[in-house]
Amino acid sequence: MELLQKKIVEEGIALSETVLKVDRFLNHQIDPQLMSEIGKEFATRYQDEKVTKIVTLESSGIAPAVMTGLVMGVPVVFARKKKSLTLTEGLITSSVYSYTKQETTDISMSNKFVDQTDRVLVIDDFLANGQAALALIDLIDKAGAEVAGIGIVIEKAFQDGGMLLREKGYRVDSLARIASLNNQTIQFATEEETIR
Amino acid sequence: MELLQKKIVEEGIALSETVLKVDRFLNHQIDPQLMSEIGKEFATRYQDEKVTKIVTLESSGIAPAVMTGLVMGVPVVFARKKKSLTLTEGLITSSVYSYTKQETTDISMSNKFVDQTDRVLVIDDFLANGQAALALIDLIDKAGAEVAGIGIVIEKAFQDGGMLLREKGYRVDSLARIASLNNQTIQFATEEETIR
Repeated sequence: MELLQKKIVEEGIALSETVLKVDRFLNHQIDPQLMSEIGKEFATRYQDEKVTKIVTLESSGIAPAVMTGLVMGVPVVFARKKKSLTLTEGLITSSVYSYTKQETTDISMSNKFVDQTDRVLVIDDFLANGQAALALIDLIDKAGAEVAGIGIVIEKAFQDGGMLLREKGYRVDSLARIASLNNQTIQFATEEETIR
Repeated sequence: MELLQKKIVEEGIALSETVLKVDRFLNHQIDPQLMSEIGKEFATRYQDEKVTKIVTLESSGIAPAVMTGLVMGVPVVFARKKKSLTLTEGLITSSVYSYTKQETTDISMSNKFVDQTDRVLVIDDFLANGQAALALIDLIDKAGAEVAGIGIVIEKAFQDGGMLLREKGYRVDSLARIASLNNQTIQFATEEETIR
C-alpha cells in the first residue's frame, strides 16, 4: 500500500535494527485519514471472505480495525490485555509472550461476541514474531469461530511471525512489509518476498 | 443523540445503580457505524471551535475519537495508562483516581504531539466523576495547549463530573446523559437538566 509506505518513510523512525517507531500516525498519535484508507484496503482484500466479525487487540489495533469494520459493515471486538484477571466469568483467555518486554501478558475476550457462526478477520498494527496474532487466533479458536485471515498494517518481514502464520495455512495480508531496519534505513519487501 | 439513546436502551445493561454496561457496542465490542455517527455529531458541534487536535484515553475512547478526527480532518492522540512509567523522557504525565477500582493510574502522553499552538477537543467514552477528563485536561495544560471542549459519549449525570467540569468553565457535550440507573431501569436526562 503505497500511501502507507510513503508515511512510514516520511514519519517512521528506525530506532534500532528491530524497532520501528511509528508513533506519529499509528501507535500514539493516529492519522484518521490514513486509518480510513487502511480500512478500505482491508475491506477490498477481504470482500469475498464472508467476514462476520473483526477481532483486534487494544490499543493500537483499534483504529485500523474500526475503520475496516465501518467499510465491511461488521462489528469489531477488541481483546483486552490484563496481567491479572479478576473477572473471569464468560471470559476466554490466552497468553502472549513479548520478546521485546520479556514478559507474558494475558489477553481476554468475552464469549458473548464471537461464536461458531462467525468468520473472523484479525486486524493488528504490527506483526513481528507473531505471538500476539497467535494468541488472538487462539481466542477465536476457543470461541469456536473460523479465522478468515490476518490483516496487518506493518509486518517486520525479517522476523518470523509472518512465516509462522503462513506455514500454519493462514491467509496474511500485510499492507507494508519491512525487509530491514539496518543502518537506520527503512527498506521494504514486496508482498511475496521471503526475508526469513 | 437519538440513535445512541436507542442503542443504550436496546443493548445497555444497568448492572447496578451506578454501573451501566455497554460492552455490546462501545467498551469491548464496537459498532463502527454508530461510532461514525458519533464522530459526525461531535464534528458538527465543534465545527466553529478551531479544533486542531483530539486527545483521548486508551482504549474505549479511541474509536469515537478517531471517527471524530476523520470528519474534522485533525490528528488524534491517545494518552496511555500505565502503572509504572519506565520511559519518562519527553512524557507528560498525570494521575487518575478511579473510585470504581479504588486505585490511582498514571496516564501519559508524549510532548511531541500537542503544543501551545493547539486547540484540543477531549473525547472520552464515559463521564462519571470526571477524574479521567480532569487528568486529560491536566496533560493538555502541561503541554501548553488550550482545551476547546470535552466530548463525551455517555455522561452519568447523577455523578458530579459534568458539574465539576462545567463549573470550571469547560464546554462539555455529552451525546447521552443518564439521569438514573435505579431499579435496573435506564432513565435519560436532557442536555440541560442538572441531576446533581
